[in-house]
Amino acid sequence: TFIRGIQTVTLIPGDGIGPEISNAVMKIFEAAKAPIRWEERNVTAIRGPGGKWMIPPDAKESMDKNKIGLKGPLKTPIAAGHPSMNLLLRKTFDLYANVRPCVSIEGYQTPYTDVNLVTIRENTEGEYSGIEHVIVDGVVQSIKLITEQASKRIAEYAFEYARNNQRASVTAVHKANIMRMSDGLFLRKCREAAEKYKDVKFTEMYLDTVCLNMVQDPTQFDVLVMPNLYGDILSDLCAGLIGGLGVTPSGNIGANGVAIFESVHGTAPDIAGKDLANPTALLLSAVMMLRHMGLHGHAKKIETACFDTIRDRKVLTKDLGGNSKCSEFTEAICQRMKDMD
Amino acid sequence: TFIRGIQTVTLIPGDGIGPEISNAVMKIFEAAKAPIRWEERNVTAIRGPGGKWMIPPDAKESMDKNKIGLKGPLKTPIAAGHPSMNLLLRKTFDLYANVRPCVSIEGYQTPYTDVNLVTIRENTEGEYSGIEHVIVDGVVQSIKLITEQASKRIAEYAFEYARNNQRASVTAVHKANIMRMSDGLFLRKCREAAEKYKDVKFTEMYLDTVCLNMVQDPTQFDVLVMPNLYGDILSDLCAGLIGGLGVTPSGNIGANGVAIFESVHGTAPDIAGKDLANPTALLLSAVMMLRHMGLHGHAKKIETACFDTIRDRKVLTKDLGGNSKCSEFTEAICQRMKDMD
Ligand SMILES: CC(C)[C@H](C(=O)O)[C@@H](O)C(=O)O
Ligand SMILES: CC(C)[C@H](C(=O)O)[C@@H](O)C(=O)O
Repeated sequence: TFIRGIQTVTLIPGDGIGPEISNAVMKIFEAAKAPIRWEERNVTAIRGPGGKWMIPPDAKESMDKNKIGLKGPLKTPIAAGHPSMNLLLRKTFDLYANVRPCVSIEGYQTPYTDVNLVTIRENTEGEYSGIEHVIVDGVVQSIKLITEQASKRIAEYAFEYARNNQRASVTAVHKANIMRMSDGLFLRKCREAAEKYKDVKFTEMYLDTVCLNMVQDPTQFDVLVMPNLYGDILSDLCAGLIGGLGVTPSGNIGANGVAIFESVHGTAPDIAGKDLANPTALLLSAVMMLRHMGLHGHAKKIETACFDTIRDRKVLTKDLGGNSKCSEFTEAICQRMKDMD
Repeated sequence: TFIRGIQTVTLIPGDGIGPEISNAVMKIFEAAKAPIRWEERNVTAIRGPGGKWMIPPDAKESMDKNKIGLKGPLKTPIAAGHPSMNLLLRKTFDLYANVRPCVSIEGYQTPYTDVNLVTIRENTEGEYSGIEHVIVDGVVQSIKLITEQASKRIAEYAFEYARNNQRASVTAVHKANIMRMSDGLFLRKCREAAEKYKDVKFTEMYLDTVCLNMVQDPTQFDVLVMPNLYGDILSDLCAGLIGGLGVTPSGNIGANGVAIFESVHGTAPDIAGKDLANPTALLLSAVMMLRHMGLHGHAKKIETACFDTIRDRKVLTKDLGGNSKCSEFTEAICQRMKDMD
């Protein structure tokens, strides 16, 4: 991965507006002199031996070699039995932690200010086990699978994250009053992790209560850790508080440094190819990636240029309330970084 | 149930602040000359034959006879294996639809205005099946049970509700992209119901997308229908948008007119007995009850007096931003109704 200090990252531009916003990120990284070489790979599910869906071997090899990926939006195929590409990637590389920082962006007004929290979602099991049965005609069951191992792993990840990112508290989100055994196991592992990280405050809260409190005062939350489905819900809810998926970064973290950072918005086929897309979510995901790689200086520089450009409100894409093109917004960020040098 | 036009309702005052707010409601009903006679019953779970938890026979008989109940908060016992009383009541009387209207209250400021929606939650199955297993040590599964019958029943209830309450649209909330069979079945029954109620607009949306859109613009939603757990989450989230559980009414509806209306906030033991509680949620639940009984005039009168009192901002309990006691707030509402006569 290292060539004279330059690290190679697998870039999956994705579909729809994916290539445009990936281009924007590459331009900004160049202007920031980030020591990253991109290895572009296409990801469209193919059928492997036995008809199993898998990601193309050259994308898999690239990720296996580079360990770190950046990914734009992928369209969800509608073929019967075709898996979501996002889920397939998480599974293929055992990316067990989905991390989404939600921080209010100055200059982009929403009903909330000072939101500053991180949702950490268990990414491999729970309601996403994919195990379902018809019991008898008209009676279906889906299985939510919770394991000690995965619960322990995500709980400890959350406390590790809090400690490494100067965050004071971790809240475990659960419905152990209803799912006493499964959420009970998850909660127990969180409590055990809390015992190991006494420097981080620990609280636990029912999912419904979290949702209610979140819309009333999100500033009370810091790091939140939860099973898969609750994370799906809460991460989107929290993204809504700060302006939506167009400005919210995301990282999927696995063992041994393996990680894929991604924008979680859609492919926006209606504006694809028209130079109208907002690259912020992918750019901020790329900033998370730089931090993950220890490139804090470059991360800070790009992040500052991006936030300053938004705060300034002069050059903004349509969804941010402006009239500028993707390329103009990108150029404005690059210009700011030149001014910083 | 009918004595010269007077109907008898089972009143379950509940624990903590329950008796105070029940008293407030009874006073206001008297001042409104609502033709209701209250039959008070205590509900504490007892052990029946075979050790099964059940509600006391005199409460059950009262409900069986009166069909309609009003209920304050019940404390959740922490004895191992003790069921939530709320769940036990829903189960005992097969109250399959949980209905929560969330309407912005003038004079009670939140980050949102003009919220006007209703969540309709399937109340009997799904993630609340209570079926859980340890597969092997450290591996637990919870079963989400979805049936055709319950899905059809709640879907049709939602459309019936929309039609009877002059509401234009029903949105089915699901994760059928993940739980293809269970949520898929639920969604199919919603689509089938939509075919029968062509006068009501039908849309479907992923739960995560609903959460995101909800905090960005709740005014886009009207009636929402969903499986049990999603309803637990969304109803609390929506309550948060209009000011919390202290002002949000709730109804649990069964077949043949059977129904229990309840405030869904807690028992607030810290302020119990101090004449500080806010009776609004229980009062508005009682107003829902009057409408359910066809007593629209009395419902309107009480509701108007309550909302006018809040809008006026002169006599309010602490949680509503005022300094008045529960009894003073109650008296202010009664006085308004006298002024109306
Ligand atoms: C695309 C979809 C399968 C996915 C999910 O449900 O997890 C998405 O909502 C997400 O949050 O990444
Ligand atoms: C008390 C609890 C069991 C209940 C639930 O989870 O359904 C509550 O949150 C509700 O919404 O009525």
